[in-house]
Amino acid sequence: MNRLEVTEKIISTKVAKGIKWSDVADKVGLSKEWVTAGCLGQMTFDAKQAKVIGKIFGLTADEIKWLQVVPYKGSLPTPVPTDPLIYRWYEIVSVYGTTIKELIHEEFGDGIMSAIDFSMDIVRQPDPKGDRVNVVLSGKFLPYKQY
Amino acid sequence: MNRLEVTEKIISTKVAKGIKWSDVADKVGLSKEWVTAGCLGQMTFDAKQAKVIGKIFGLTADEIKWLQVVPYKGSLPTPVPTDPLIYRWYEIVSVYGTTIKELIHEEFGDGIMSAIDFSMDIVRQPDPKGDRVNVVLSGKFLPYKQY
Amino acid sequence: MNRLEVTEKIISTKVAKGIKWSDVADKVGLSKEWVTAGCLGQMTFDAKQAKVIGKIFGLTADEIKWLQVVPYKGSLPTPVPTDPLIYRWYEIVSVYGTTIKELIHEEFGDGIMSAIDFSMDIVRQPDPKGDRVNVVLSGKFLPYKQY
Amino acid sequence: MNRLEVTEKIISTKVAKGIKWSDVADKVGLSKEWVTAGCLGQMTFDAKQAKVIGKIFGLTADEIKWLQVVPYKGSLPTPVPTDPLIYRWYEIVSVYGTTIKELIHEEFGDGIMSAIDFSMDIVRQPDPKGDRVNVVLSGKFLPYKQY
Amino acid sequence: MNRLEVTEKIISTKVAKGIKWSDVADKVGLSKEWVTAGCLGQMTFDAKQAKVIGKIFGLTADEIKWLQVVPYKGSLPTPVPTDPLIYRWYEIVSVYGTTIKELIHEEFGDGIMSAIDFSMDIVRQPDPKGDRVNVVLSGKFLPYKQY
Amino acid sequence: MNRLEVTEKIISTKVAKGIKWSDVADKVGLSKEWVTAGCLGQMTFDAKQAKVIGKIFGLTADEIKWLQVVPYKGSLPTPVPTDPLIYRWYEIVSVYGTTIKELIHEEFGDGIMSAIDFSMDIVRQPDPKGDRVNVVLSGKFLPYKQY
Amino acid sequence: MNRLEVTEKIISTKVAKGIKWSDVADKVGLSKEWVTAGCLGQMTFDAKQAKVIGKIFGLTADEIKWLQVVPYKGSLPTPVPTDPLIYRWYEIVSVYGTTIKELIHEEFGDGIMSAIDFSMDIVRQPDPKGDRVNVVLSGKFLPYKQY
Amino acid sequence: MNRLEVTEKIISTKVAKGIKWSDVADKVGLSKEWVTAGCLGQMTFDAKQAKVIGKIFGLTADEIKWLQVVPYKGSLPTPVPTDPLIYRWYEIVSVYGTTIKELIHEEFGDGIMSAIDFSMDIVRQPDPKGDRVNVVLSGKFLPYKQY
Amino acid sequence: MNRLEVTEKIISTKVAKGIKWSDVADKVGLSKEWVTAGCLGQMTFDAKQAKVIGKIFGLTADEIKWLQVVPYKGSLPTPVPTDPLIYRWYEIVSVYGTTIKELIHEEFGDGIMSAIDFSMDIVRQPDPKGDRVNVVLSGKFLPYKQY
Amino acid sequence: MNRLEVTEKIISTKVAKGIKWSDVADKVGLSKEWVTAGCLGQMTFDAKQAKVIGKIFGLTADEIKWLQVVPYKGSLPTPVPTDPLIYRWYEIVSVYGTTIKELIHEEFGDGIMSAIDFSMDIVRQPDPKGDRVNVVLSGKFLPYKQY
Repeated sequence: MNRLEVTEKIISTKVAKGIKWSDVADKVGLSKEWVTAGCLGQMTFDAKQAKVIGKIFGLTADEIKWLQVVPYKGSLPTPVPTDPLIYRWYEIVSVYGTTIKELIHEEFGDGIMSAIDFSMDIVRQPDPKGDRVNVVLSGKFLPYKQY
Repeated sequence: MNRLEVTEKIISTKVAKGIKWSDVADKVGLSKEWVTAGCLGQMTFDAKQAKVIGKIFGLTADEIKWLQVVPYKGSLPTPVPTDPLIYRWYEIVSVYGTTIKELIHEEFGDGIMSAIDFSMDIVRQPDPKGDRVNVVLSGKFLPYKQY
Repeated sequence: MNRLEVTEKIISTKVAKGIKWSDVADKVGLSKEWVTAGCLGQMTFDAKQAKVIGKIFGLTADEIKWLQVVPYKGSLPTPVPTDPLIYRWYEIVSVYGTTIKELIHEEFGDGIMSAIDFSMDIVRQPDPKGDRVNVVLSGKFLPYKQY
Repeated sequence: MNRLEVTEKIISTKVAKGIKWSDVADKVGLSKEWVTAGCLGQMTFDAKQAKVIGKIFGLTADEIKWLQVVPYKGSLPTPVPTDPLIYRWYEIVSVYGTTIKELIHEEFGDGIMSAIDFSMDIVRQPDPKGDRVNVVLSGKFLPYKQY
Repeated sequence: MNRLEVTEKIISTKVAKGIKWSDVADKVGLSKEWVTAGCLGQMTFDAKQAKVIGKIFGLTADEIKWLQVVPYKGSLPTPVPTDPLIYRWYEIVSVYGTTIKELIHEEFGDGIMSAIDFSMDIVRQPDPKGDRVNVVLSGKFLPYKQY
Repeated sequence: MNRLEVTEKIISTKVAKGIKWSDVADKVGLSKEWVTAGCLGQMTFDAKQAKVIGKIFGLTADEIKWLQVVPYKGSLPTPVPTDPLIYRWYEIVSVYGTTIKELIHEEFGDGIMSAIDFSMDIVRQPDPKGDRVNVVLSGKFLPYKQY
Repeated sequence: MNRLEVTEKIISTKVAKGIKWSDVADKVGLSKEWVTAGCLGQMTFDAKQAKVIGKIFGLTADEIKWLQVVPYKGSLPTPVPTDPLIYRWYEIVSVYGTTIKELIHEEFGDGIMSAIDFSMDIVRQPDPKGDRVNVVLSGKFLPYKQY
Repeated sequence: MNRLEVTEKIISTKVAKGIKWSDVADKVGLSKEWVTAGCLGQMTFDAKQAKVIGKIFGLTADEIKWLQVVPYKGSLPTPVPTDPLIYRWYEIVSVYGTTIKELIHEEFGDGIMSAIDFSMDIVRQPDPKGDRVNVVLSGKFLPYKQY
Repeated sequence: MNRLEVTEKIISTKVAKGIKWSDVADKVGLSKEWVTAGCLGQMTFDAKQAKVIGKIFGLTADEIKWLQVVPYKGSLPTPVPTDPLIYRWYEIVSVYGTTIKELIHEEFGDGIMSAIDFSMDIVRQPDPKGDRVNVVLSGKFLPYKQY
Repeated sequence: MNRLEVTEKIISTKVAKGIKWSDVADKVGLSKEWVTAGCLGQMTFDAKQAKVIGKIFGLTADEIKWLQVVPYKGSLPTPVPTDPLIYRWYEIVSVYGTTIKELIHEEFGDGIMSAIDFSMDIVRQPDPKGDRVNVVLSGKFLPYKQY
């Protein structure tokens, strides 16, 4: 058994039972973004959270243990994603990457925006010209240290 | 002459004169994100905006014309970026890509978040545990149409 | 179970029973292009459409549910397709890519031709020198917005 | 001297003088798609056409000769294009590739749609919900021959 | 079931029974090159030919149907082939590619040598210094058409 | 100076003076295929041949020396060629590669068809349905030796 | 002018004058690892440090400014390094990568070892069986945060 | 059976029984780094060590034999690792690679730091600003020999 | 069944029974290099040799037939090998490749060292400073022929 | 100035003056293999050797200094070499790689054959059936050490 098999079982069960990620997140008591990432095999649940997930998706004791093991991360099958929704995000990095770099450095100096001490919030913004997806990314600035 | 040469001249002049992107944006009258992307060769200025940019960076008439030509976009030298700041964004797409996809589809159905009818806002969020980079991405949801 | 398995079952059944895509499309009541793409695991059917497809191909209730789940899109096994028919399309993008870009920008300014608000129609055009494949692609023009 | 240098001179002159591709095509007396592709270094002009092009862009006698030499074709710098407009076309091939293949084979049997005995027409289709880019591709069907 | 499984069964049976490709071709009544390519999953048999193949290799009715379905072509596992015999052909394209291009263009003008309206004949040429493999490739010249 | 510069000068001069490869070959006294490959930087001329080439293309004494130096071979800029004429040859290797391998092994046993002790002849074959390009490849069979 | 040109000038001057990195570091007053990385175009100097560097390598005022601009990082020309010394480090990541991951997670839980809040110390360790290179890497552990 | 299957069984059992790598290492009597690498299929155990490992993880006699076979090394699924923890190490090689090269050569001359006569020690360094991961790498310097 | 399965069975049996390649070679009556390559699926045995191999590894009649079928060669899973022992050989080609080319051409003129009419002998050379691996490669020189 | 420029000057001069690598090696007093690799920018000369080289090729004082700087190694422009002579060596690694690994491990246990404590000798072996290239590679065996 491995984490991938647990992830596949979760997804399979989700489709068969019509479970929603936001409901799973409510039961775990954390954001829908982090919980979904965890169910998709990218994050590590603690024992209590894993038990909740296990109950929702009908996991065995061993499968619940796998949810608590740090996974090998990376959710995409190719370096450049082929799925159009995910590609648009890759395109933002490709087109705006140097812009993001310039502006963060102009404000903060040399360093990075953390992808670890990080959170993400995806919300619908109603708009008469067509609703929008609004995403807030928040990452701690980590300065390069001299030594 | 080509757009790349104009971009390189802009960057060269920026370093030599100590110009700030946010000041350039103020003079153009648009967001710092869009204006920086334009100066870095990713967006198209109209005649009036190009003139302002041209004045700031001491561009010739021909160079100002190039700012109004739609560029071949994509600002990174490799499919997987090597620069740590930009890589963290690639990593977010890699780790959270399937999560973003699931949650947008759960909320909106099949379709994408536009990278064209799109805006981005990068701000500093003071935090006693270390200031954070907050980025708001806003893209129109475009549903797949049946035909 | 996953979408790929449903797609493989559909294709397997199609060969075994000699089903035609155009007949499937007629029963679903949409174009042959969109319906075929859906059967090949690239589009999302609604409940009613999925039921029709399910009946044609003898799918189970769970398999019919999978037809309603947004798939991870991208139908080709390699970045540059090896199949000669599909390669010719890649070649058109490779040879004419910059031409298409120039002419759309000359007509519309900076922006893209949508691949989401998009339709395609493939028809046979009789020709004494050899019949032709005529394909009409129609995509909404989406202008880059300044902000 | 090589063809690439001639192409770059043509593009440079186009920007400096504000020449339009459709005007060039009118003077050559062929479609804007084929003429633009030729000016961008993908097609071969005959002596008379090359002379017209040479006059418009101020080319030397040697440069005019290069327009009549068959070029090494392929207009994109990377296998997967980074420019958003061109990428959308790549995405169409990626998402719809197997669909196009199935439907052409269903109609014509085994073979390909030629990219050589081929034409393309790009037009604006006014639409109250936003104008559309309509592209008609026409390629002779070439059946695989048994031997 | 899919075409690959049928191909693997054909190859397996060929080894187990010691069948020769040239004998298969004789029974089908076509060249050994085309018939072998078909048996290896690259070409499409008609009903009568498929029946002959099916009998030779002990295929089921469904497997015989798959021989009549246009396959996704491309017989090699990597873009640059590792097998020495096949690599030598890739090397010929790599070393002589520009030469072939120059000489065909010098003789015919701009266009291609078809790989669809195409035949190949592989024969042994006895030679006292060591027998040679002689291969005749014949492809229709297809000129680029202006439009 | 290096071989590439000599090759570029040869090509440049060829276009400027309207020289034909077949005429060059006649003067050298060898096949047009081998001589063209040499002029394109893939083969090594001896002193006498280099002198003839040098005279035709107006090369300096040093440039003539470079024609006699064994070049780093490989004439294509990418592993998968983008030029349609050359791609068709790559496609033949991709589609027919395993067929060629099977048939040579069936006739000769394990070994390869040499790309070194090799010749190629490209000729026009008149055909009322459209002239054909006929290419004869001849390579010595080299058997794997046991030891 | 760009940072790469400044880096090349520094390296050129170092060879011509026989400057040692450790001496440069002493004058800057920081570790030899960080200072060398900065001189090789990977780190950002402050005004005072840049002045010291500028004096040592005879840089102009503009070149000194470039040392204070955050560079696009990544010092290797290929994803898998070809240089044997650097490859051995890549090999350590390849062979021991999963081991490092397991042991850090066993000790710290889910998170990463920072490459930003990071230092490195390279020292010679005398050894009768052959001196050793000892490298101490120190990176802050950054735990994934739940949200 | 192959080594990969043995590795997967070891990992599976580790999760199911909650075994710690450091405890395994204690029982084997070697460092946790080397023993973990061995359990993950990168190193070769001797008969006695393999027996200890076999007992801990409930391996069969054949599986224990596989632990003593030299494995095909390389523990990562892609040339550039996607997992954030392992990527940071790749980033260190990418950003600091030329620095490491310069400093080792400055101290030792031309040669490499061995990845074979090599050891690694990973320890937690308590720090009030956040604990650190400290890693000591020790590799014998191997000078290039002239001959 | 295919050759890969036979190879895997051979390797599996070798580990289970503790068979040595040199003993296999002795029984076949050829060099250990050629026989090992054959057992690893890279060479073709004749009927008599295959029978010997089959007896040693307990192969079935069909498996013995597969040993006599010319395999698709290439024994490595990635273009750049990750295994350190094999990588060192790749490194020799990378570092010394142009040197080998220069020296063979200086001695023999244009041509290649055959990898088909080729033998290899790997021996231990005792050395007080540490035993050495000595490998003798012998390949027939094949000159490019003019035609 | 950089090492590449020095290498190119050496090669240029070699062609212009007709210098032979074996003569250069004689004057330096080392093997032709090591000296050629050094002249091609892969090895590091000491002051005395560099002076000899400098005299032969007419190098300046600065160019002679560059010969004493450890170069970034790797002499090939692509991961899989296109030059036929060098490719044959790559093919040997590809086809025989696992064989070499098995036999060295059978003789020596786990470890590698060094490419650093390494020498190579290329000689012509006269043979009535065609002279052979004989190459002796000698590398110290380096065992993996447990710790």
